[in-house]
Amino acid sequence: MPKKMKILVTGSSGLIGGIVIRALGEKYDFYGLDRVRLKGGPDIPTSIADIYQYDQIKSAFSGMDAVLHLAADASQVASWESVSHNNLVPTYNVFEASREAGVRRVIFASSNHAVGMLELEGAARQIRAGKYETLDHRRIPQIDDMVRIRPDGFYGISKAFGEAMGSYYADNFGLQVACLRIGTVTKENDPTTNIRMRATWMSHRDMAHMIDRCLAVGSLHFEIFYGVSGNKWRFWDTSHAMRFLGYSPRDNAEDHY
Amino acid sequence: MPKKMKILVTGSSGLIGGIVIRALGEKYDFYGLDRVRLKGGPDIPTSIADIYQYDQIKSAFSGMDAVLHLAADASQVASWESVSHNNLVPTYNVFEASREAGVRRVIFASSNHAVGMLELEGAARQIRAGKYETLDHRRIPQIDDMVRIRPDGFYGISKAFGEAMGSYYADNFGLQVACLRIGTVTKENDPTTNIRMRATWMSHRDMAHMIDRCLAVGSLHFEIFYGVSGNKWRFWDTSHAMRFLGYSPRDNAEDHY
Repeated sequence: MPKKMKILVTGSSGLIGGIVIRALGEKYDFYGLDRVRLKGGPDIPTSIADIYQYDQIKSAFSGMDAVLHLAADASQVASWESVSHNNLVPTYNVFEASREAGVRRVIFASSNHAVGMLELEGAARQIRAGKYETLDHRRIPQIDDMVRIRPDGFYGISKAFGEAMGSYYADNFGLQVACLRIGTVTKENDPTTNIRMRATWMSHRDMAHMIDRCLAVGSLHFEIFYGVSGNKWRFWDTSHAMRFLGYSPRDNAEDHY
Repeated sequence: MPKKMKILVTGSSGLIGGIVIRALGEKYDFYGLDRVRLKGGPDIPTSIADIYQYDQIKSAFSGMDAVLHLAADASQVASWESVSHNNLVPTYNVFEASREAGVRRVIFASSNHAVGMLELEGAARQIRAGKYETLDHRRIPQIDDMVRIRPDGFYGISKAFGEAMGSYYADNFGLQVACLRIGTVTKENDPTTNIRMRATWMSHRDMAHMIDRCLAVGSLHFEIFYGVSGNKWRFWDTSHAMRFLGYSPRDNAEDHY
């Protein structure tokens, strides 16, 4: 049997960390990095450290095959102060520690909010407002990975920053980098709790599946993927993830409406 | 006679600050913001403050019509530590202070290094190396303002960050933002000092002219322009600046070769 890949998960006690570690815990050897040990958090070896402090987190990267960087202030309305402390410096620290430790691949939890302002235009605007009458779902323009950055807040800016950092580490150091512009993942995993999720829902199992594909895919330089389930009314392009990663979502918000 | 516009220039003692203030000092009322008062610097009212400290710089923005944000570690090989201290936080401070003071327009000195890795590909790569034989200069693909971010260092990352910040302040607060991906501006203003400048030279008078156009143009939401002279071998798109701003470069590096 081939040796399991060793994966360091930053923010391992968070929502997505829990989903991924539960779903893929048999296939990969997960290690955690978090600032506190949460009761009921995933049962994996976890380094407790302040990710803002490079020297505190450095050793956790040693011997890892890949890093899943989830740690962040994940609120889309996070303040500048929080974002600069929790998202900017830590993201540099993670890429730099990965490079220094010889980690091959980093999966960065970016966000759709890096281009969130695009939702206020065109078909996406109509869909967000629940006005489907004049739309053919097969013809909704898909926001793809090549559009210009249009962040809708400091949180989105911090994610665009992380993507730029990842691009540099890929181009300059050969680190393999996948950035996931993740849609709406909620604890309840129920797409009917707000109307926007009819387009933007990312189910737990599709989230875990996408991360599995990012870890398993053979060749990777630098790519940006939208992390969204196969929702009928989605306005983010999934064709790139489907072709490149073999991403094959099983959920569709429409089945719950 | 109409009242002159009041323009705050951050990093006013730097190279580009001096060029702009000398060239346009009759047309606009310039005010400086810098950390030190340099001997031989421009003779304008200047606030001496640490741009990293929001409270120190805030008052300088009051009553300004526009801000020209030049202050930065302008070295393309700047370290992460320097960039995060001198480029990231200060750029947030400048956009936020502009918004708070009701400034209408911010011109942000971005850089070609936000997409510098693109130079290592295709025709740009050949031009950089001085290999023109197989190229028709009329058919060189022009790197435009819609390409995906490809920073070539922490400096380039900080400039991509500033553009993302500007996009947000434009979309969310209605601040008018022009980002200039400036080419190679040198004190000597001589494009023959290195071969790359045959493509990337931005002459002093074209630099001042572009900033004049950014200040004078009527309508502006958020735009990215390449700041480069009319060089025969340029690989950055100037058509957007020409059409949108009425930018009309007078210099061409080729005339000096």
